[in-house]
This record gives sequence, C-alpha cells and structure tokens, in this order.
Amino acid sequence: MSDNPTSAEAPMFKRLALIGVGLIGSSISHAARRAGLVGEIVGSSPSSETRKRAEELGLATKMYADPSEAVRGADLVILCAPVGAYAAIAKTIGPHLEQGAIVSDVGSVKSAVVRDIAPHIPEGVHFIAGHPVAGTEQSGPDAGFAELFDGRWCILTPEADADESALAQLRTFWERLGSDVEIMSPDHHDMVLAITSHVPHLIAYNIVNTAAHLERVTDKEVIKFSAGGFRDFTRIAASDPVMWRDVFLNNKEAVLEMLGRFSEDLVTLQRAIRFGDGATLEKLFTDARTIRRGIIQASQDTPQPDFGRRAGAGAKSSAR
Amino acid sequence: MSDNPTSAEAPMFKRLALIGVGLIGSSISHAARRAGLVGEIVGSSPSSETRKRAEELGLATKMYADPSEAVRGADLVILCAPVGAYAAIAKTIGPHLEQGAIVSDVGSVKSAVVRDIAPHIPEGVHFIAGHPVAGTEQSGPDAGFAELFDGRWCILTPEADADESALAQLRTFWERLGSDVEIMSPDHHDMVLAITSHVPHLIAYNIVNTAAHLERVTDKEVIKFSAGGFRDFTRIAASDPVMWRDVFLNNKEAVLEMLGRFSEDLVTLQRAIRFGDGATLEKLFTDARTIRRGIIQASQDTPQPDFGRRAGAGAKSSAR
Repeated sequence: MSDNPTSAEAPMFKRLALIGVGLIGSSISHAARRAGLVGEIVGSSPSSETRKRAEELGLATKMYADPSEAVRGADLVILCAPVGAYAAIAKTIGPHLEQGAIVSDVGSVKSAVVRDIAPHIPEGVHFIAGHPVAGTEQSGPDAGFAELFDGRWCILTPEADADESALAQLRTFWERLGSDVEIMSPDHHDMVLAITSHVPHLIAYNIVNTAAHLERVTDKEVIKFSAGGFRDFTRIAASDPVMWRDVFLNNKEAVLEMLGRFSEDLVTLQRAIRFGDGATLEKLFTDARTIRRGIIQASQDTPQPDFGRRAGAGAKSSAR
Repeated sequence: MSDNPTSAEAPMFKRLALIGVGLIGSSISHAARRAGLVGEIVGSSPSSETRKRAEELGLATKMYADPSEAVRGADLVILCAPVGAYAAIAKTIGPHLEQGAIVSDVGSVKSAVVRDIAPHIPEGVHFIAGHPVAGTEQSGPDAGFAELFDGRWCILTPEADADESALAQLRTFWERLGSDVEIMSPDHHDMVLAITSHVPHLIAYNIVNTAAHLERVTDKEVIKFSAGGFRDFTRIAASDPVMWRDVFLNNKEAVLEMLGRFSEDLVTLQRAIRFGDGATLEKLFTDARTIRRGIIQASQDTPQPDFGRRAGAGAKSSAR
C-alpha cells in the first residue's frame, strides 16, 4: 500500500510481477503506481545490472534473477521480455503461478505468444495475451514513464474460453493505466500490426542500412542532410534490436504478406517515375493525406507540424 | 526599410522577389525580415487566393500574378515554386531581370533546375541554384515561420563559372536566415538528396498507399493502431503532392538508383525473415542505431524520445 498513499480504494491487485523491466515493463510500473492499482510490484530480469537499476529507480520493491521466484504470491503477472524468450519463461514460471492469478504479456505479436505461453499455464490460472500499442525508440529500465499508455490503444487477444471476469479485470487495469482497450483475435492482431508497426520498422531499418552502404554518398552526408526526411526513419530504426528480431521471427507470415504488398506497390511507383507518369504520382501523393488527417483526428499523433519537434532540434542555432 | 526598423545596418538587398510563397517562400520572408536582410519583399503567385493571403500576412508588400512584374527592380529573385514550373517561370522573367541581380531557387532537385533555368538567365545576371534542406509536412503561405532554417543546411550548387561575389552574398544571405551553407555539384546534390529525402518520401507515400488498400485490415484499424510506427511515415506522406511529383519527375536517375539499392536490401531482409535468420536481423538492427546517434550529435534531430511529441499527442487522455 505504500505505493499508493493517497487513494482510498483498495488496489486492484495485491502483487504485480513484471517479468522484464525495459521500456514497457518500467512504464507499467510507473503508470500502475500513478493510478494506485497495485499493492506491491516485484520483477525479474536475467541482467544483474538491470535488477540493480530497477530497484534504485523504485520500479519494483524486489527484483529476482529467477522469474519463478518473482511470480510467487503474484495475482497479476505480465511478461515484458522480448517475445523470443516467452516459451522458456512460461515453462519456468508455470508450476509456480498462484491459483486465480492472471498472466498477460506486452509482446508485439500475439499468435506465436499464445502458442508459446498457453501450454504452460496451469488449470485455475487465467492467461490473456495483450499488446499496448505504445512505445518510444528508447529501451531499458530508465526509459519508462507513467504517461506512455495515455490515449494509446491496448489490444487484448483472449482465447475463446478465456475467463470473463479475468478479462474484465485486465481490461480495467489497462484502462486505468491510461489506455483504451480493444479485443481481437491473435491472427487479426498480427495482420493489423504487420502493416501498422512491423513493416514500417522493417523498412525504416532497411533504408538506414541502405544509406549506410553507399559508395557515392558518405555517412557524414547522410547525417548532415537527414532533415530532408531520412531522420524520421532513423528514430524507429533506433528501437531495441533483440525485441524487433523476435517480432519478425514470430510474425513471419503476416509480415511477408504485407511486405509483398508494399513491394508490389513500390514497383508501380518506380514504373511511374521511370516513364514520367506525373498524374499517377500526384494522385497517389494526394490520397496519402487522407490517412494522416484520420490519425490526427483520432488523436493518434500530434497535429503540430514536424511532430512539434522544433523546440528540440535547431537547438544548435539558438545556442550560438 | 519599414520591414527592419531596429537594425542600424543597411539591408543586404534592396528588393527581394519571391516567385512562389508556399511553406519555403513564406518562411524566407519571415526569416529575412527577422534578420533585417531586405529593404522590400514582393512576390508572385498564379493563385489569386494565395496573393491575397500573402499580402494579408505581410509576407510581401505587393503580390503579382505575373512573375515578370515581381522581378522588376529586384536585386535578389528566389524561385519558390514546384520545380516543374521553373522552365516556364525562367523564360517569363528572363528579359525582365535587373543587371547585377542574383537569381536563385529552393528546389529539392538541382541538375534539372540548372538545366531549366540557366538558359534563360541574361548576361550580367547571376544564377546560383540552392536548396534549403528544411521543411514541414505543411504547405501554403500560412505554413511558413522564421525559424524554419535555423540550424538546417542550405546547399548551393553554383556552376563552375559562377560569380564569386554573388556566391558569397547568397551564402551570407542563407547564413543570416539561420542556415549553415554547403557547396556541391548539382549531380552530387541529387544523389545525396535521393537517399536522404526523395526515397524516404517515396516509401512513406508508398506504405500509406499500401495500408489504404488492404482487404483484411480496415483504414479505421490502420488509423487506430498507427502509434506502433506507421504514423511516423504519414507525416512526410502529407507533404505537398505537386511539389513531390515534380521532384520525382526531375530526379529520375538518382531516385531509381537509390530505390534499386533499397529494394535489393529489402529482399535480403525478407529472406532473413523467411528463413528465420535471427542473427542477420539482429546485426542489421543494431547497426542502424549508429546513424541515429550521428544525427542527434549533429543537431539534425531532437534527442527527446518520440521526437518529444508527447505533449501534443495523448491529448485525448489528458482532456478526459
């Protein structure tokens, strides 16, 4: 209760175990304490440095090397590690989960996560996979902040036989972290996120790689003149490499399908450029504005020009 | 002189003619007045609405429909229209340019611009092509602001026989608008910008188009879950369609070359995903962080997570 001295309500969960305390895990800790949702937070990490730092930051009252120790007595367990590690974690913690506990996760893919976790969940424990669609390009326990989920969507992908009461509780938990909650099937999630997140990251990583390996343009030139558009891509290409490796390895079909579409459309644009077909280019560029407007209307991005980043960039000039 | 009541220095140019007053033209007006660089600013636009608005905003003391009227008496003329219109503008204004005047432009391609403008410049008038690498996704006379060029690079691409004194003056003009100035050949400019600006815009337009034409994912879902990365691409895909059409039509070779590289690299990534080659993915994703760090060190982007845009986005939540 010391995490929540001002709230008169009892916390929703007496003990939250965060298996992993990177950007998302640490943000859950901040946001859960902001909302007074949990009595106590414990965590686990395979890295002694991360464990030490998480305790220093007050993300958890106690950090464990072994996730099976962290889940003891926890009524809410959230896996916040790269999804490639989930199968091993689930196998380790399975026998130590409390009866009635809710187990969830924050992975960016869902079918593979259900495949990897569900078999290790004992009878009487409620597993509901989840994915907060929120993040920054930073990672690690210092990167988290309480506002990360505010106004962002959290997608839950319960199996058909999921416990209704556990689902309702998990929904309320995410809403009180600041999110809106959407329910969908794991397969559909993976298809939607392939186009809204996975392929964008892949092509951002790819163009940064392409730019770094040119003979006729130096890296220094790429950096100097990046304000022409390239720098926008480098932000998401600075995201955690292991997390993203695991996303692509675990959402292969949907990513390859969306990538096929992307490449097909790109060839059409390439031909329009080659043959000087200005009408096709102009129409397509005009159409693209509609989706931007929709995103701003849905409060999923800032309406300010240039992401409102002027205050941060151009500092060189004002510091002269 | 009324534009610059506080400066004791005489303005660098007595009359600046802006041929086009969209985002860049209007920003030059604001920045030139901020620095007291010009005695008077006039402009031209084919749109009566734009002319009216530019006068209302004080971007120019007088706006003309005919660019040849705007350049009379101007010692600095800057073309700020879509580059596809340059040949016709240059032909129109050529006979009316003042002896000793400097003619420049702000187009995002340079070889085609030199090809289109240079033949129309009379003896005794100094043509030096230029490109401020700065912008936002917004367009039109209302989009400009004085700080747009602060800490951004402006590339000048003088021909070999360019007048040294005119080049020095134009360099100083851009420096006083807030830019750093770099000199390079038109061909090299077009190669550098193909990778740092043109191809990024093309793939941003392309993924927005791909996302808008899926059968299994709705536009509404794309918008809702865009915070996973996609929304970053929609910003530059909201840029002016005519300007960008003209860029691609006028930098065909360099764009097709860089696009070829991009597609080749993307196929490599696609194969790594198909065959589950996590090591290749992780290495490439790790390497991509280096360029981001370089961009931040070179003050070409904000170091704040998520472009510092939290204050603008997530407003939905805080407004509840």
